[in-house]
Amino acid sequence: MTSEPLLSQLVESLRCLPGVGPKTAQRMALHLLERNREGGLHLSAVLLEAMQNIGRCKQCRDLTELEVCSICANPRRDHSLLCVVESPVDVLAIEAATAYQGRYFVLLGRLSPLDGIGPAELGLDQLAEKLEGDTPNEMIIATNPTVEGEATSYYLQRMAKKHHIKISRIAHGVPLGGELEYTDQSTLAHAFGSRLAIE
Amino acid sequence: MTSEPLLSQLVESLRCLPGVGPKTAQRMALHLLERNREGGLHLSAVLLEAMQNIGRCKQCRDLTELEVCSICANPRRDHSLLCVVESPVDVLAIEAATAYQGRYFVLLGRLSPLDGIGPAELGLDQLAEKLEGDTPNEMIIATNPTVEGEATSYYLQRMAKKHHIKISRIAHGVPLGGELEYTDQSTLAHAFGSRLAIE
Repeated sequence: MTSEPLLSQLVESLRCLPGVGPKTAQRMALHLLERNREGGLHLSAVLLEAMQNIGRCKQCRDLTELEVCSICANPRRDHSLLCVVESPVDVLAIEAATAYQGRYFVLLGRLSPLDGIGPAELGLDQLAEKLEGDTPNEMIIATNPTVEGEATSYYLQRMAKKHHIKISRIAHGVPLGGELEYTDQSTLAHAFGSRLAIE
Repeated sequence: MTSEPLLSQLVESLRCLPGVGPKTAQRMALHLLERNREGGLHLSAVLLEAMQNIGRCKQCRDLTELEVCSICANPRRDHSLLCVVESPVDVLAIEAATAYQGRYFVLLGRLSPLDGIGPAELGLDQLAEKLEGDTPNEMIIATNPTVEGEATSYYLQRMAKKHHIKISRIAHGVPLGGELEYTDQSTLAHAFGSRLAIE
């Protein structure tokens, strides 16, 4: 490592980025200093603004610098569909891959009592209010297929049943282009169990 | 991509970092926003300070926020040895791997007339002055073994000869732990040509 204090501080700070180890951080720091100081200054300014101003959408808890995010504010989105996801990145993934035109609710986590994450931390009170006031016809549960994601999913199903809302869960199974031979056992077992009649 | 303006601006700005594509930038932005706002704010502040204050050492042209870098300012470093490298990262690599106790001169590039990089851009006038005033006994040339690096090396050799300084070049050949079978042809040819008598 370098013995210049400010340079090592920069390398150290860059390591707060995910997937960036000491070697990569060093390469990033030197790249900015040697070749792209303007980019570095711009990044510094945008980072500051983003960290200070980006909060959560009042309606769906997604990340936004506005009161209400652009999806919730869009009058052309379908109010009768509500998709519940774990994190903002899931919203981006669904928006990029599907033609879904409904709205979202972002939990920002999943139920995990051992880590102290209960319904309150996931904004489920807020979701309950939403279901009460602006009841959607269908709630699509798109939490991740992990143990905590499944637990969260059951909790959401119970909530939706109380309000007599149609519930659906995105399908899990063998990915398109995947081969049975290389699919892990639990996915294959799940795909078998959830087989669909084709006629 | 997201439709929130500030978030997409942040993702875009993060792409100025080397090796960071759209997916990685998105992951970095969401990680900072969801989990490490303090780290993000700290990075922003350090980036600003580094981009504004880090300049070049007056003596060796290495990156530093001081007038003279810590290596040049260290009275215990040997003034009789001068190692010439292409970039600050080479200084870090040599410091980490070797017990070299001499000083450095950082070219910040290599001779490449087609790209408009001549002796002046590499600070070779400054190096000439240094050789004149504070003549070292030995100049170790550690430019990279590329075409431009070799051209730079020849130029440096001519300079050193004028001042009757002993010249050396770091060894190139089969890397330790490497196997002849997997060594590229030009490296192997070079290693053969530069064989050393062992008795």
